[in-house]
Amino acid sequence: MKSSKSIETVSFVGSGNVATHLAVALKGAGVEVAEVFSENTENAKTFAIKLQCSIAESIQNFKMTSDLTILTVPDSKIVEVSKLLPDSDSIVVHTSGITDISVLNGREHYGVFYPLQTFSKERKVDISEVPFCIEANNENDFNLLMELAFKLSNNVKKVSSDQRKLLHLTAVMVNNFSNHMYHLAQEILENNNIDFDFLLPLIQETALKINDVHPAKAQTGPARRKDNSTIKEHLKMLNEFPEYQEIYKLLSEQIMKKYHE
Amino acid sequence: MKSSKSIETVSFVGSGNVATHLAVALKGAGVEVAEVFSENTENAKTFAIKLQCSIAESIQNFKMTSDLTILTVPDSKIVEVSKLLPDSDSIVVHTSGITDISVLNGREHYGVFYPLQTFSKERKVDISEVPFCIEANNENDFNLLMELAFKLSNNVKKVSSDQRKLLHLTAVMVNNFSNHMYHLAQEILENNNIDFDFLLPLIQETALKINDVHPAKAQTGPARRKDNSTIKEHLKMLNEFPEYQEIYKLLSEQIMKKYHE
Repeated sequence: MKSSKSIETVSFVGSGNVATHLAVALKGAGVEVAEVFSENTENAKTFAIKLQCSIAESIQNFKMTSDLTILTVPDSKIVEVSKLLPDSDSIVVHTSGITDISVLNGREHYGVFYPLQTFSKERKVDISEVPFCIEANNENDFNLLMELAFKLSNNVKKVSSDQRKLLHLTAVMVNNFSNHMYHLAQEILENNNIDFDFLLPLIQETALKINDVHPAKAQTGPARRKDNSTIKEHLKMLNEFPEYQEIYKLLSEQIMKKYHE
Repeated sequence: MKSSKSIETVSFVGSGNVATHLAVALKGAGVEVAEVFSENTENAKTFAIKLQCSIAESIQNFKMTSDLTILTVPDSKIVEVSKLLPDSDSIVVHTSGITDISVLNGREHYGVFYPLQTFSKERKVDISEVPFCIEANNENDFNLLMELAFKLSNNVKKVSSDQRKLLHLTAVMVNNFSNHMYHLAQEILENNNIDFDFLLPLIQETALKINDVHPAKAQTGPARRKDNSTIKEHLKMLNEFPEYQEIYKLLSEQIMKKYHE
């Protein structure tokens, strides 16, 4: 695409949660969503109706006339898709946390447009708060991507592939692993006919607290205060859940080490 | 205390975060905070000034004239303190998650008044949302404690000691263990000069999401989709943090098992 103008049209390869959330937000910001392709034709149709855009019948028939082509395909498909897409001036970006920018170096214009958030069908996310990690193979494209991201969010940063990978790793810890804790708690309580909703205010407060308090200072509980008798009792209660017992033991040991060694 | 009247005066043994948050909330609800004792005399003074109440010089000199005496001492001290306190009609309750109600059975009137929340100096908690778990050794005292708790919160339930222990165990998981994930993430990012604040919107959304979505359905990420190549890369990135590698491995294995076996 030409040097001076900004990104006015966008197309998507992939039509899942990330594509849909991004496309809706971009359209809301006045950017035209022109075209979509997805191997999941049902998803592609839903996306095309929602965004009122055209559907490519195959990746080779993708028109590629948009200023930007956003790949939201699985990480393992990014290289293949970027090679199958027709030649074009369109900037091709992926939205993957873990994938290096260099996998796209078969293209002329390429970059990364990574929103650091968990997207699901069931919830609308306030995109203006979502951190966007931007990278590009040249300064002009980088500036265009930054400008576009700032139309969506106040939280846009230049982030290298190595930094992005670390953010992705730690995102797995704070998101997937915390959610796994919620899941285990829900199973244990359900198993004992106790309503999981009891824990919701605590879960919210735990997350809100670190807006004000450093996580090292926010820690409380039996491991933090080296309360071995409570830890022992908890472990006994987990006898019927040996896998959860293992998690409890490992995490408690590590928390204790942090504060008592 | 007499059968019919409600709880109008409260005293505290212990003057830490739980005592302070409860006392401030009770006073705000029109309940008189009469007396405090704490082995930490500095804390006791601060508490007494804040709540404009008297200080007992020793546990044996505690006046015990309040309708309710709330013990917020460490779990291991509850039995001892309840034995040292003078005889009285005052209902004696503890605020511990893990401690059985029966440890107080040396008293005539006793129970449990357990707020299921994390309290710290740095943050004001909306007490009206905090679940209170109530238990007592007789129905009249139970009703009085329920009535009092409802002055503070809309979320008050009769919870047996066994149920409360399970809530406490799962509270450790969703609070302490999630916070430990935040802590690890913060360390890894800091170690690489990346701002931890980048993760805050994700952390908030992770917690908010389960208000709408069951934790089993809310799960995303590499383990959820059995993305072995990302997991492998993340583990490699954690080479310099062997302990965190162990956590990553164990939790990823368990998440994978849940969805792929």
